[in-house]
Amino acid sequence: MSQEDLLKKMSNVPEPTLRRLPWYLSNAKLLKQRGERYVSSTQISKEINIDSSQIAKDLSYVHISGRTRVGYEIDQLIDVLEDFLGFTKIHKAFLFGVGNLGGALLQDSGLSQFGLEIVAAFDINPLLVGTRMNGIPIYSTDEFEQRLAECQVQIGVLTVPIEIAQQITDRMVQGGLRAIWNFTPFRIRVPEEIVVQNTSLYAHLALMFNRLTAYNQSE
Amino acid sequence: MSQEDLLKKMSNVPEPTLRRLPWYLSNAKLLKQRGERYVSSTQISKEINIDSSQIAKDLSYVHISGRTRVGYEIDQLIDVLEDFLGFTKIHKAFLFGVGNLGGALLQDSGLSQFGLEIVAAFDINPLLVGTRMNGIPIYSTDEFEQRLAECQVQIGVLTVPIEIAQQITDRMVQGGLRAIWNFTPFRIRVPEEIVVQNTSLYAHLALMFNRLTAYNQSE
Repeated sequence: MSQEDLLKKMSNVPEPTLRRLPWYLSNAKLLKQRGERYVSSTQISKEINIDSSQIAKDLSYVHISGRTRVGYEIDQLIDVLEDFLGFTKIHKAFLFGVGNLGGALLQDSGLSQFGLEIVAAFDINPLLVGTRMNGIPIYSTDEFEQRLAECQVQIGVLTVPIEIAQQITDRMVQGGLRAIWNFTPFRIRVPEEIVVQNTSLYAHLALMFNRLTAYNQSE
Repeated sequence: MSQEDLLKKMSNVPEPTLRRLPWYLSNAKLLKQRGERYVSSTQISKEINIDSSQIAKDLSYVHISGRTRVGYEIDQLIDVLEDFLGFTKIHKAFLFGVGNLGGALLQDSGLSQFGLEIVAAFDINPLLVGTRMNGIPIYSTDEFEQRLAECQVQIGVLTVPIEIAQQITDRMVQGGLRAIWNFTPFRIRVPEEIVVQNTSLYAHLALMFNRLTAYNQSE
């Protein structure tokens, strides 16, 4: 079964909906901080500029429904969304490649608030191996299989140079990791049952530069 | 003119193409390291699993065409793509919010290799104001307008807590910034001529967790 089919069968939530749910969550958190107890899809709609019928439809996927006149209870909305998005459960991860970006991600303690805990990092640089960054141990890449045997980890964060991106990916898959968060600008190949999430900061930069150039030239 | 129209008029490159170009660039860099001089769209196609006719079409947008039998000259391909994607020009930026993620981005010197140079950061925390991180000065948010007057900056990186995301956005826009790289999970509102690039790491995490859960449940 392909990854797409799996997703369809098990969760039935369209990807555009999944991408919007975190916006509703952050909006609900904000309203809670302001002391609100209930929110309607019309209110959310005004705040974040998405059609209110779309919001109601999206929220029906996570099995939450508003009450007539008062709308959604904010506490419940936050709980359900955080749970559904996987932010309340800790997902352990290994990080591969402690360069600029890898090191930055190790420093970002905010990830654990959203359910991702990087428990160990791997690199080949002898100056890094054996040290810790933000409390997270850095091991030699050679130790990966052994460390994996010691702890339940399913996720690998890929921040290596592009020339070894595929090689490290293959090793992660062979070792038994099931999801790869790929920060490299390289398009990695994996068996179809492996989950890949591409987050290329550089591709996003290119999109932004391109639009900005268009804007500057239009003046 | 809306942002979409502007983009259409000035660059005429569809967003899916823009998203694929960095993959071709990283692939070309890899082949260069291996000592190759030419590459065909068929070869790129095999490497990154995208239809070769699509690759040829994408590359025609950046005004580069392959030669019969030998294909694209790799050095030229790299130069043209880096230039087109804006990676060869330095785009100065201000960063707002030196928390976990903001601090991590200040540490990531890799961004400057892709054309983004964060020249100053802003925060309200008195323990941070007046210090430097990775050589980048951190000023009080109150100083933003004054600092902007001193240097040509068009881009703001937004890494503040969600409760002040809109307020800081409004201030960036009023000050004269033209593009916002939004790392918060908050959907900011801006005038239509302002470029917004959303990069929500947490939304990406949610997508990955959701697929992983579907996969685990399918066994």
